[in-house]
Amino acid sequence: MSNLSTEPYKGVRDFYPQDLSAQKYVFDVWRRVAESFGYVEYAASVLEPSELYRAKSGEEIVTEQTYTFIDRGDRDVTLRPEMTPTVARMVAGARQALPSPVRWYSIPNLFRYERPQRGRLREHWQLNVDAFGIKGLEAELELIEMAYRIMTAFGIKQSQFTIKVNSRFAFDAHFKAQGLDADQIKRVAKLIDRKKKIDDFDAKLAEIKPGLDGNVPEPVIIKELIERLSSRGVENVSYDPEVMRGFDYYTDVVFEVFDNHPDNNRSLFGGGRYDGLTGLFGVPDVPAAGFGMGDVTILDALATYGLVPEYRSTADVHLCVTDASAFEDASKLAAELRGQGVAVSVDYTGRKVGDQIKYAERLAIPHVVVVGPDELSSGQFKVKTLASREEKASSRTALAKTILG
Amino acid sequence: MSNLSTEPYKGVRDFYPQDLSAQKYVFDVWRRVAESFGYVEYAASVLEPSELYRAKSGEEIVTEQTYTFIDRGDRDVTLRPEMTPTVARMVAGARQALPSPVRWYSIPNLFRYERPQRGRLREHWQLNVDAFGIKGLEAELELIEMAYRIMTAFGIKQSQFTIKVNSRFAFDAHFKAQGLDADQIKRVAKLIDRKKKIDDFDAKLAEIKPGLDGNVPEPVIIKELIERLSSRGVENVSYDPEVMRGFDYYTDVVFEVFDNHPDNNRSLFGGGRYDGLTGLFGVPDVPAAGFGMGDVTILDALATYGLVPEYRSTADVHLCVTDASAFEDASKLAAELRGQGVAVSVDYTGRKVGDQIKYAERLAIPHVVVVGPDELSSGQFKVKTLASREEKASSRTALAKTILG
Repeated sequence: MSNLSTEPYKGVRDFYPQDLSAQKYVFDVWRRVAESFGYVEYAASVLEPSELYRAKSGEEIVTEQTYTFIDRGDRDVTLRPEMTPTVARMVAGARQALPSPVRWYSIPNLFRYERPQRGRLREHWQLNVDAFGIKGLEAELELIEMAYRIMTAFGIKQSQFTIKVNSRFAFDAHFKAQGLDADQIKRVAKLIDRKKKIDDFDAKLAEIKPGLDGNVPEPVIIKELIERLSSRGVENVSYDPEVMRGFDYYTDVVFEVFDNHPDNNRSLFGGGRYDGLTGLFGVPDVPAAGFGMGDVTILDALATYGLVPEYRSTADVHLCVTDASAFEDASKLAAELRGQGVAVSVDYTGRKVGDQIKYAERLAIPHVVVVGPDELSSGQFKVKTLASREEKASSRTALAKTILG
Repeated sequence: MSNLSTEPYKGVRDFYPQDLSAQKYVFDVWRRVAESFGYVEYAASVLEPSELYRAKSGEEIVTEQTYTFIDRGDRDVTLRPEMTPTVARMVAGARQALPSPVRWYSIPNLFRYERPQRGRLREHWQLNVDAFGIKGLEAELELIEMAYRIMTAFGIKQSQFTIKVNSRFAFDAHFKAQGLDADQIKRVAKLIDRKKKIDDFDAKLAEIKPGLDGNVPEPVIIKELIERLSSRGVENVSYDPEVMRGFDYYTDVVFEVFDNHPDNNRSLFGGGRYDGLTGLFGVPDVPAAGFGMGDVTILDALATYGLVPEYRSTADVHLCVTDASAFEDASKLAAELRGQGVAVSVDYTGRKVGDQIKYAERLAIPHVVVVGPDELSSGQFKVKTLASREEKASSRTALAKTILG
């Protein structure tokens, strides 16, 4: 039999401890900021009935861009490509029991069947934050402030990113007032969404209706949004009539966070108001707003800014044991330290102490303590900090404290 | 169009905040104890090439009990049913770069295509702990001690569970010495694995070979294991020649943690030594030992013991805002508190303060603070703790400290 490949499945990632540590850092920041706004975490399975996506996005997306298959019970199943249908399903399902408003967040993995490319793998994780039951601008204000606080919690400065806001409702109204029907408005939206990528924008606009005024003046709701965000210290917000965020999804305010860095000048994430989704489940429409933020995109941005924290093992100390006769006593010492909150690995290889220290260095464990018959009988140990090469003497009873600093 | 169902896919769970909170508690204990032993976390995608499972378990398991499908690029893909093949793949793939030994853990979700029943859903999460590169008993000692510490970290007492240990190697040797070949030994192992479920055990044993001595005496390695665990304070370990843990997988020491509770008297989880898996990837065999522990099983056990912590929101305080004129100032106060580490939700509904307090109670947010023109102008607030109905007066500057206690 030929050997098995050690490669993961195409387009997905293996997370070795260093990789996972960077991702966990991102998740930790997401959790901390989302929870600081009173949002609580929920989750669901990656498997969903396929009909959940057909309803919203049309047959095409389910079959072309998703992982969809038939299970042995003839059920049509999809690996979720996005979280919003799931959260709408859960809110609709428990609406009697859920006090309003609902402030929820989740960090699901999402699957899309597409050619792997930078920032667009087949599987990625995404922070999803949603507020259900808040009709007014308060939801948008809170969510955009949260998006801002997430960026600054990562160490990105206000001058390094821009929050662009638009109103889909005002956009529709502007073109309706010029006599366009719903289908024509959709075509204009598509055109504006692609404006930067096409040369003959004006000609294409005139094709929809000659003499059309394509410049949507800044809506009142956007003025108020920008003003109130500014009074909360969020001052890098500006009106951008070209921010569309998809076509059928959003109903009013939409926003996008742009990276101003010359090497990474692009949209990082966004969201907006999407009233009406819960109606698909036969329950009254619940006002809703939210945003999604992917792990790959933000990790790319953090790398550009040099803001990914250096890897450090979750172990605090490696006990370098001089010979096998000390294994049991070293294990007992380790148990003692663990009881005092120290994360301890013990070296049972019997190799040279120098090699045991090198091992700890390669694993990025910050401290080592040599444990041999001398240290065990005297009760005197030395804690070596590997980064600084500093050594501190310590009694057995003070050891945990010396290690944890 | 008929309404969409709000039910999740068959055999998987929705995690509403209370459900997720219980699961996160389990994960937190798992992480804390695994890391206290110097194990670091890794992860991988739930999608794996199907060949990974064919190699180890034989065609039957891949097609009958797993979620397997063909992707649009004609790749045969499986939703991982277990983590061990993945971790062996990753260790084999990076063996040049990985200092030995490797102490890793992960908390993957796993899929099995089977009839949903108590404790056996189609998707569950499992702590997987593995040590690669440790030949001797030190790995088993460390892993069994860790399993023990996980149980006690959950608040389960030593008298409430038993750790049963066996040696597959000694088992094989016992029957080899009686002239059995590999195939006959496998049949005996299967028989003993089912011993409690069958009536005519002795007759069935004699069928394999008449006069067979089915009683495997306690192996030396097990005596040493039990003794050394006892000297580390792990005293509920006993030899059980009936612990088999599957058939082709393990090579020597195996263990199982049994719940002694009369209402839940069963195996909770287990593991053992499985040298040889990395060989499938064309690299030299690496000694390996590990265990896996499922979330559903341990949550059932914790429920039996009344050890699932009561749900509490991650929000620390709900600001009850008396009227819309105070919304902006309440938002600023919230930002101030968040800057001091308080998780704050703000009530923008404009409903009666009593209803805002009821909302906080239903969400299990521990504190409320009423914010209105009076409080804002005087700078004097009252922090109400909902469980005790206690009220504490506080200045604006001391508010964060008063809330966090």
